[in-house]
Amino acid sequence: MSNIVTVIAPVNIAVIKYWGKRDEKLILPLNDSVSATFDTSVMCAKTSVSTHPDFVEDQIWLNGKEESFSNPRLQNCLREIKSRAVAEKTIAEDVLSWKVHVSSENNFPTAAGLASSAAGYACLVSALAKLYKIKSDVSSIARLGSGSACRSVYGGFVRWHAGSKPDGSDSIATQIADSNHWPEMRVLVLVVGNTQKKVSSTVGMKISSETSELLKHRIQHCVPQRTERIIEAIKNKDFYKFAEITMKDSNQFHAICLDSYPPIVYMTDISHSIVDLIHKYNDFSGETKVAYTFDAGSNACLYLLKHDVPKVISLIKYAFPSTSPENFITGLSVAKEEINTDILSKLCIEPMGMDMIKYIIHTKIGEGPTEIDSHLLDSNGLPVSEINKI
Amino acid sequence: MSNIVTVIAPVNIAVIKYWGKRDEKLILPLNDSVSATFDTSVMCAKTSVSTHPDFVEDQIWLNGKEESFSNPRLQNCLREIKSRAVAEKTIAEDVLSWKVHVSSENNFPTAAGLASSAAGYACLVSALAKLYKIKSDVSSIARLGSGSACRSVYGGFVRWHAGSKPDGSDSIATQIADSNHWPEMRVLVLVVGNTQKKVSSTVGMKISSETSELLKHRIQHCVPQRTERIIEAIKNKDFYKFAEITMKDSNQFHAICLDSYPPIVYMTDISHSIVDLIHKYNDFSGETKVAYTFDAGSNACLYLLKHDVPKVISLIKYAFPSTSPENFITGLSVAKEEINTDILSKLCIEPMGMDMIKYIIHTKIGEGPTEIDSHLLDSNGLPVSEINKI
Repeated sequence: MSNIVTVIAPVNIAVIKYWGKRDEKLILPLNDSVSATFDTSVMCAKTSVSTHPDFVEDQIWLNGKEESFSNPRLQNCLREIKSRAVAEKTIAEDVLSWKVHVSSENNFPTAAGLASSAAGYACLVSALAKLYKIKSDVSSIARLGSGSACRSVYGGFVRWHAGSKPDGSDSIATQIADSNHWPEMRVLVLVVGNTQKKVSSTVGMKISSETSELLKHRIQHCVPQRTERIIEAIKNKDFYKFAEITMKDSNQFHAICLDSYPPIVYMTDISHSIVDLIHKYNDFSGETKVAYTFDAGSNACLYLLKHDVPKVISLIKYAFPSTSPENFITGLSVAKEEINTDILSKLCIEPMGMDMIKYIIHTKIGEGPTEIDSHLLDSNGLPVSEINKI
Repeated sequence: MSNIVTVIAPVNIAVIKYWGKRDEKLILPLNDSVSATFDTSVMCAKTSVSTHPDFVEDQIWLNGKEESFSNPRLQNCLREIKSRAVAEKTIAEDVLSWKVHVSSENNFPTAAGLASSAAGYACLVSALAKLYKIKSDVSSIARLGSGSACRSVYGGFVRWHAGSKPDGSDSIATQIADSNHWPEMRVLVLVVGNTQKKVSSTVGMKISSETSELLKHRIQHCVPQRTERIIEAIKNKDFYKFAEITMKDSNQFHAICLDSYPPIVYMTDISHSIVDLIHKYNDFSGETKVAYTFDAGSNACLYLLKHDVPKVISLIKYAFPSTSPENFITGLSVAKEEINTDILSKLCIEPMGMDMIKYIIHTKIGEGPTEIDSHLLDSNGLPVSEINKI
């Protein structure tokens, strides 16, 4: 019977964005980034890894379907984990020669632009690290799978240090504050319908690095200052400052994309109407109640405090009506609140067409990768599928 | 009988964009800009001015409707013209004390984001200059009406110098090349339907100047270099270079808008799908055949050479179908060309929904303001309306 380890790992969404590599192969970024890790009880990747002398080849199943193991990013992660195991002498050398089986699933749509590769690689690397009993930081190995995966290796609020060494050994993630530090923080992921075809992050970053004249200024002058300031805001639980920097950095990231040639466009009219709604609501409230941030896609991620969730959801429901309101919110439960008609008249909001936002995922800040007992590989090292999709 | 002068003046669209003021009151820009002036036979403002001892007050009619003369920009233009007349001793001082009547019309929709204020103020100031027999450059006076109006004072390709003097006396327009210099150059203005509510240029520039961290870099490092390079391209009739700089500067201007806080968004999904189509077409053609540029609105302005117009129009007609194709193109006539099916299969273009582009104005480079004999004021100084709308 094979030795199986299963881990669930979280999604993370950056508030200071990673955009542009200083080394394509080692996935070393041009700038530091900062993110929040989301609760695995709502969104997670789940990965089982197993090794056995009888396995004849390395094999991987994603969402139950076998994929090629020859993917260089996957190869790099496995090779680095094994070499770390050798260096740390955690395991007998013959065990390292056995082939591995990997089965991985996400409980959310892979292609929806919800940082699935970050969660996926953090999960894989964490599972392999446990299989080979590695104790040291593995964020730099997760980084080889997908840059932002290194941030999903920790819970709470996380900083990915760009580092300066050519070998990338100082390009690692560290925790700014753990998942219990700011318990009031909540997250709404607004999944926007009709996402248009988009440029992958890898291709987009390359185009921006090569063509955006503004990117250098962002990296040298804007990001270092913002990174220090948002870390301070997180440590002091200063929501206003956290929110303002988050929104400005999201906007600047998309500005850099637009300054690229050809221009890269991830936000749609719907994304911009979400931005507009949040600014109107904050103006109406007389203080910054909600922050938006957008990754390389049209979905919005909103940060807000727990007591504002019902009101903000009622506003979104009004502005973006759904044909199936009973399935509109998933994740953490939320008290129902009727829309405040005073807000509506003062904000001059007209409802958009139906289903411009497909659904909302309601979540909170959570912990890093965690080992669990329910496996995605059976005792023969073959995949079993059971995870519930949200 | 009153003394009437009537002038028609052109629209201009910048290829190096003006965005941000160093002096709000004098309308002094943070950076130089470069534009092309469009043929008045297609799009123009028309203004009649008249002065007479019997006129009891300054009066203005816009598109036949009387408006307040108290608008400070209008007042500034009239005051500066009169003080120039005094300085140049062109006219008897008592004539300068007579009230003026102004009647002005555009032959295109005022609110469509088609630089109507640039044409309007260039027209007003040029007409007043002729009325008061001023011979010197009046671009700095047109600038007081609307910044970009100073560029409509000249035909062909025009540079607006930011200048450095606090009084703005060196913030003037000069001609780079006249309207006959590049006779093959054509322009297609794509009027996009369903334009959303937008932030005015004046407000937008103020927000960007105060909040965009990238704007300073654009002004100090990007614009000076681009300005020199595009002037060289215009002088050498180097379409490829002209087009590339035009597109990059349009993209950077909209990037700066997005980097502002709150972000300013002028381009819509339709605007971006036009950008996408042009890049696909240029890639397909193996050379840069068409350049796009977008002002503070969603309409596209395409620069291209005469021999490419039929093909590009056939492509736009296919990609953006119209419910009234017979009225889809206005302005200069164009030979009909059927869409090349080879292009379609290679570009993977799917037609958008109907009427995403309302219509196209086909025009070319033209001359500056010109005096004409058909007036918008009658012999009593009262408005007559006759201009045909396009």
